[in-house]
Order: sequence, then C-alpha cells, then structure tokens
Amino acid sequence: MKIKKILIHKGRKFFWKEGDLHTEFGVVKEEEIKSKKIANSNKDNEFLIIEASFQDNLEKMKRGPQTMSPKDIGEIITRTGMNKNSKVLEIGSGSGALTMYMARIAKEIISYDIREDHTKIVKRNLKDFEIENVKLITQDASTEIEENDFDIATIDVKEPWTVLKNVSEALKSGGYIVSYSPSLTQSNQVIKEAKQNPDLIVLDTIETIERKWDITKLILHPQIRMIGHTAFLTFIRKI
Amino acid sequence: MKIKKILIHKGRKFFWKEGDLHTEFGVVKEEEIKSKKIANSNKDNEFLIIEASFQDNLEKMKRGPQTMSPKDIGEIITRTGMNKNSKVLEIGSGSGALTMYMARIAKEIISYDIREDHTKIVKRNLKDFEIENVKLITQDASTEIEENDFDIATIDVKEPWTVLKNVSEALKSGGYIVSYSPSLTQSNQVIKEAKQNPDLIVLDTIETIERKWDITKLILHPQIRMIGHTAFLTFIRKI
Amino acid sequence: MKIKKILIHKGRKFFWKEGDLHTEFGVVKEEEIKSKKIANSNKDNEFLIIEASFQDNLEKMKRGPQTMSPKDIGEIITRTGMNKNSKVLEIGSGSGALTMYMARIAKEIISYDIREDHTKIVKRNLKDFEIENVKLITQDASTEIEENDFDIATIDVKEPWTVLKNVSEALKSGGYIVSYSPSLTQSNQVIKEAKQNPDLIVLDTIETIERKWDITKLILHPQIRMIGHTAFLTFIRKI
Amino acid sequence: MKIKKILIHKGRKFFWKEGDLHTEFGVVKEEEIKSKKIANSNKDNEFLIIEASFQDNLEKMKRGPQTMSPKDIGEIITRTGMNKNSKVLEIGSGSGALTMYMARIAKEIISYDIREDHTKIVKRNLKDFEIENVKLITQDASTEIEENDFDIATIDVKEPWTVLKNVSEALKSGGYIVSYSPSLTQSNQVIKEAKQNPDLIVLDTIETIERKWDITKLILHPQIRMIGHTAFLTFIRKI
Repeated sequence: MKIKKILIHKGRKFFWKEGDLHTEFGVVKEEEIKSKKIANSNKDNEFLIIEASFQDNLEKMKRGPQTMSPKDIGEIITRTGMNKNSKVLEIGSGSGALTMYMARIAKEIISYDIREDHTKIVKRNLKDFEIENVKLITQDASTEIEENDFDIATIDVKEPWTVLKNVSEALKSGGYIVSYSPSLTQSNQVIKEAKQNPDLIVLDTIETIERKWDITKLILHPQIRMIGHTAFLTFIRKI
Repeated sequence: MKIKKILIHKGRKFFWKEGDLHTEFGVVKEEEIKSKKIANSNKDNEFLIIEASFQDNLEKMKRGPQTMSPKDIGEIITRTGMNKNSKVLEIGSGSGALTMYMARIAKEIISYDIREDHTKIVKRNLKDFEIENVKLITQDASTEIEENDFDIATIDVKEPWTVLKNVSEALKSGGYIVSYSPSLTQSNQVIKEAKQNPDLIVLDTIETIERKWDITKLILHPQIRMIGHTAFLTFIRKI
Repeated sequence: MKIKKILIHKGRKFFWKEGDLHTEFGVVKEEEIKSKKIANSNKDNEFLIIEASFQDNLEKMKRGPQTMSPKDIGEIITRTGMNKNSKVLEIGSGSGALTMYMARIAKEIISYDIREDHTKIVKRNLKDFEIENVKLITQDASTEIEENDFDIATIDVKEPWTVLKNVSEALKSGGYIVSYSPSLTQSNQVIKEAKQNPDLIVLDTIETIERKWDITKLILHPQIRMIGHTAFLTFIRKI
Repeated sequence: MKIKKILIHKGRKFFWKEGDLHTEFGVVKEEEIKSKKIANSNKDNEFLIIEASFQDNLEKMKRGPQTMSPKDIGEIITRTGMNKNSKVLEIGSGSGALTMYMARIAKEIISYDIREDHTKIVKRNLKDFEIENVKLITQDASTEIEENDFDIATIDVKEPWTVLKNVSEALKSGGYIVSYSPSLTQSNQVIKEAKQNPDLIVLDTIETIERKWDITKLILHPQIRMIGHTAFLTFIRKI
C-alpha cells in the first residue's frame, strides 16, 4: 500500500498510510491528517502535512537490492533523450527503482532479470504504484532477448558484457545503451567488448558526484558526510 | 531544420541535414548518407552513419542563452518525479533546452520569459522539434501567473526570489519548486525568502559534479580538462 | 607518552606504548613486540609490527578541538612555500595538529590562542612529541601581536577578519596569509576585509576534496562513505 | 637566474629579474622596482611590487617535464610526516618541482632519474634556487639503489612496480613509500606488486580534487574551468 501523506515536525519526516500517526512527538489524529495542512499532536507539537509524492514513496520503499540514485537515473534519462515515445529495454530489474522512474516517463518498458525474487519484488512495487506499461521477464538476457526495435537499453548486471551482443541486436539504429557499473573493472570490460562489436560506438564513461549544501543564515558549506560514489555510466550507441 | 544523420570519422562527429557532406576528410555523397551505415568519402576515408537523435540536435542547437546541462536537467526530472502526467511551470525559458527536455516527458509546459527574444528562439526550436505541448508567455512572472494547479515549477532567472510567491500560489499542494542558480548568493536569497513563506518547505540545495573518464587499454583516469561548475539546485515543496 | 609501535592484524591497526598488548585476537608479549617484525598472539594470530611514525601518533592523539586534515595542511605548506627557514605565525592553536606539522618543517612557530585550555593541550602535545621551536601565547591576536617579521601566517579562528590587520603588520613584505574557514560566510568576510587593506592582495580561495579508492583484484572504485567537506582556504599576500 | 620581484597590475602578474620592466601597460623603471612598493609606469598605470617567493619562481620555471601540483606535493609531505630530519629517496626527478619542495623541507634528498636530460634540468634549477642538500643520480633505480636507511621514498616513473623491490630495501622499518601515477592502471599494478612483497603493507590510494572559487560581492561559485585530474597517490609502508 502506498504512502498517502507526509507529516513534517522540525525537519523530521513521517510517512502516513492510514489510521492515527504515532510518533515520539505525540499522536496525530487520522481525521486531522486527512483534512488539514497543519495539525497538532496530543503533545501539542505542530506537524506540517503534505500529499505524498512518488519520491516520498520511493524513499520509503525498501524492498530488494540497492536502489539507483536520482542523479544516475537523471543522467540516463537526459543523455539518452528518453521520452513519452521511448521503447526501453532494461537488463537487471533490481529493486525496480529505475524501472519505475522510466515507466512513468517512457511508453513501454521490457525488463529482464535472471532472479525470480527480484521480479516478484518489482511486480509488487509496480502494482502499488499502479504502473502498467512494464513487462517483466525472468530470464538470462545473455541467452535470448525476444523483443526488438528498442530506442534505449539500460544494463545493470554484474557482467554487463555478456548481454551486449543481444542488447545491440534488439536496438534500433541510433539507439542508446547505458551500462551502469559500481566498479571500473566492469566499465573496462564493457568498453573492450563494445569496441569489438562493429555495430556499436562507445561514446563516453562518466560519473556524477552529488554534494548537498548546508545553508542557513550563518552557515554556508557542503555537508561533511557524503556519499562519495555510486556508479560509473558508460554510454554506447548503435550504428 | 533538424539534423537527420550523424557521420563519425575517427571519433569526430559531423552533422548532416541534406545534400552532400563536405568535410576536411573528403566529400560524402547524399545518396550514400541516406542509404548506408558505412560510407567512404571521395578521399577514401570511412564514415559511420547514425540516425540523429534529440541529443544530437540539442548539441548542435546554438541559438540563445547558455543551455542547462543534462546532469542538472536529470536531477530536476528525477527529484521532482516528473512524468507523463505532470503539468509543469517554467520560469525563464532561456534557450529552451530545459523546456524541450521537459516537454518530451511531461503532459504540459507553461513557460514564462520576460524577454521576447528568448521566447522567439524557443518558439523556433519547438517548431523544429515538432513539440506542441508548450505554451510560451512573454511576461514577468513576478507580476502575475495566470494558470495554476501545477505539479512542478522550475525557476531559472537572475532574481528567483521575486517570483517565489506567485509560483507558490500556482502550485498544487505537495508540488515541487526547483530553483537553478549559478551562484550561491542567489541560492541563499531564495532559501531566505522561501523560509518566510508559510506555504513552503525548503528541502535541500545540491550541486552535481560530472567527471568524464578516459578509458583505453593502458589509460584509466578522469579527463584533465573539466567543467568544474554549472549551478546549484534548490528544492522546495509546497504544503 | 608517545606510541612506540603499530601492530597490524588483518588490516586492523593496534597502537602500542608499553607492556603486553591485549586485543580481541589475543595477547602479544612485550618482548616480542620490541624485538620482532612479525609475532603471534597467544590465540595464534599473526601481527605485523612497525615503528610508530609521527602520523600514527597524530592519529591517536584525541585531545582538544577538531584537527585539521593532512590535505589542507599540505596545501598550506606547499602554497606558502613553507621550509626550514620559515618563521610562522599561527592564529588559533586549536588542537595543535597544524602547529606540530609546521613545527617539524619550519624554523620557528609563534602560536596564539585566546583559550587557555587549548594552549594547555598543545603544550602537552608538543612535549610528548619533543618539539621545541614553538612559542605558545594565550592572547587575543586581534588586540596585539608582539612579534613581527613573519614569512607566513595561518589563521584558524571563528572571526578571522578581526585579526587581519595585526597579522598583516606582523608579516614581511611578500609574506603569505592563509585563512582556514569551514564556511564560505567566513571566507567572504575575510576577503571583503582584505580587499580594503592596501597592504594586502587576495590571491585565491580553494577547497580540496579527497577521495579514497578501493582497489583489489576485482574492485576498482572510490569509497562510498566520504568526508565531503573540511574547509575553504583563502590565500592572501602582503605587498 | 631567479625572479626577484613580482609586479601586479589589475590582477595581472609580471615577473622581474633585472633592468626596466616592459609591459603592455607601460615601462616601470628598475630603480622604482627596487625601492618602492607601488610604482607608476610611463603610461601612468599603477603596479604593486612584491618580493618574489619560491612559488613565484616555481610558477615561472618551465624547464622540463610536467610539474607536480601543490595539492599532490602537499599530500606527500603531510601523509609521510616529512620534516627537517627526513632522509628522502626520490625515484624520477622529472622537472625537479617535487625535488625542490622536498629539499627545502627535508634533511637530505637522493634523487634518481634514468634520463640525463632530466638530471641536467634539475641540476640547473637547484643551482638557481641555491639548494644544496640534493644528490642527483642518473641511473635506473630498478637495477640498483646504492644508499639506504631512508625515511621516505617517492616514486614518479612510468612503471613504478619495477623499482618497488629496491626501494623497499633502501627504506628504514616503518618508512613510507608514495607512488604517484596519472592512471589507475599503474596504481593497480603497484598495489598488486606491493601485496606480494612480505616487507610492505599497502595503506591506501587517494586522489585530491582542487576547486578554486570565484568570490566577489555578488558572485559565489566554483570556477567553471577546472583541472579535473592530476594523479593517484598510493601510500605503502615498510614493516
């Protein structure tokens, strides 16, 4: 079930689905949550109330493997030109975070994962979010990819080079491949393999580093604790 | 007119619209460009031929003010959850790069710019790209915003704080505002203003740094020349 | 008392001063630590034994306020050309980490701190490290700096602009000032003040970001947890 | 011959050795340069005059191969605890930038380079800077290193792993090795080799990224053009 509202008390965020909300700052009544923008708990603490967004729900969603970060999903979307008309092939459904982001933007997603437990998690997540343009396939994409004519393919598996040939064949001319790898050892191998494929051109490999800033009246500096690394993205194009 | 094909010779990219392509590596015949994937110039140099994508066209588009980078547009899209159903308000059309990215993803864009020359450039760009879900308005958004019920608002103007009140009123409850500022002096002022508005919650301010990597058989390091900075993004939400 | 040896078992580091070393991996005998390079604990675990260095001791030293990081101290040393002949003025002794690094390199350090507890801590640290070329003064440097003819001055206090005039007067012509500030609000104010002083030229303001890498046979990526920020360094020069 | 003074006009820097200084902003007389802090050119432009520092001279020094940056030299100095008592082994004299920085800090430097042209350049630079505690040896350090009992060794050659065994033997117990490599392919190989040497412990591999900031009354952002990469530093210790 989806989160419906977000309650905020002094910068702390609480997720609400149904019933009264019990917090260390007191209880907020369901009827208040449903009807008001600001409500007081029984301990007289003030809570701001906002409609929950897709992002709020994603943040709360903790099913399955590690989720891809918005900065990386953003690069994938913009650098491939993903849009309402895109037919997208996803190799490695994972937790479904990328799947869902893409499904809400693209026309159609076909998502492969070798592990049935992954597929099950994604299926449940898609149902919760009422997303219907995703086809999940539990199969090793290095063996076979049945569909074709894709505009974009994303690869997030341990050995991305094993699926490169099949992915290339499933793409349209001019189509984009993005390979997502936590480690440069994988990027290296993907690039080596892609360079040997006459149908592919390696564009570039990038990483993005996201800094959050603390900004108040007297403070102005990047946050001290930081996620230093998520992944490298290799962009490849089909001739 | 849009670019139709991309020709690549030894990593160098050439844009083709119509007619024969004249390059320092020789001339490639129009009929070859139209029908082949690999063609030789009259100087016997080999060119790879790819269908031009939206990105290729954007890259070539050099009309108007400085364009926003894919990394920043990506963060805007993913962190606001922009999707096929989004109604988006854009303050500051600029060159229209963000406008076009968003128009290809969202349902509807209303884009304000105070300068008529900006609006004209964007109008031409939209026509070239056959984008029809954007309404351009040449008007100072700090004076009035006529429409409302927006899911997301982006602000890319010199004094973003001046439009914050009107933008806030035009948004749905739970809607997102993203303010894009090259300089922290602006981010500072926007945050200060937003904190004084009881309808708004300041989420965070981020910057993303993009590193390109040189990866060959013997080389493995980030590129030496780098764009060190584009902008700071401040995310705000309406209660 | 200083640490004399470092014992390492499976990448974990243990500090030894005297007596037998008791660890969760067993006890290592004092006589073995003193005489061997590799020793086994009574639980038959192998420990590598290294002479403790200045860095090992600094790492262990946990007296007083937050210590400056090697990357920032490094920039201070190299960009001011600090060397055996340098006479250095330090405003803000803090924990003495910078003091000790500089004392081991420069000819003479005069270090001011407004807080007597800081001075006491640094005095004890200096004694432990047998450093004798540092003169500690518990005094507000914005009131008076008695000595002069300094080659280099470092400033690490909350309101660095308050000491700028006195520091400038205490420097030789061509001398360097480095102001260390966690927040840009301070850098801003220092620069503003320095620009109004006809004896000073503001060179630049930098920050350095340090990334640690995980490198094994199969892994090659930056560490995920990272210190995202320490401080901004503003370099100023006296005419 | 060394630079003696720096003249600054509107942020532009001019290096002076002797005679009148001829610039596009007019001529400044030698006698004025020698005796004043502010002088006017014959075109009535004002120049600030500063004693030239070691850094000014280094900046001007353009003899030989690419020089190491202050941020990297800084990390080498602080993380090895280099100081007045250090005996340092340098493999790869290069242009001598690191040599000179270290010579002004450490007790004694023995610097190897396989190329006689490098040694000649460094010899001339050392003479210009009146540095006398450096012994230059034109020899392949992978063949033999005659001296020993070093506290610290730096390696900046194309195939650092080839000298690792000899360097290790020349070091004291507890001594530090720093290997400087532009590419991770080299770091990888050095680490692999070091792990196979029972006398060595690999500490870590880091890179530092330096950002310069533009700070004026209205502007506050990192510089747009940036050096994105210099090198990776691998720290190793002798048991």
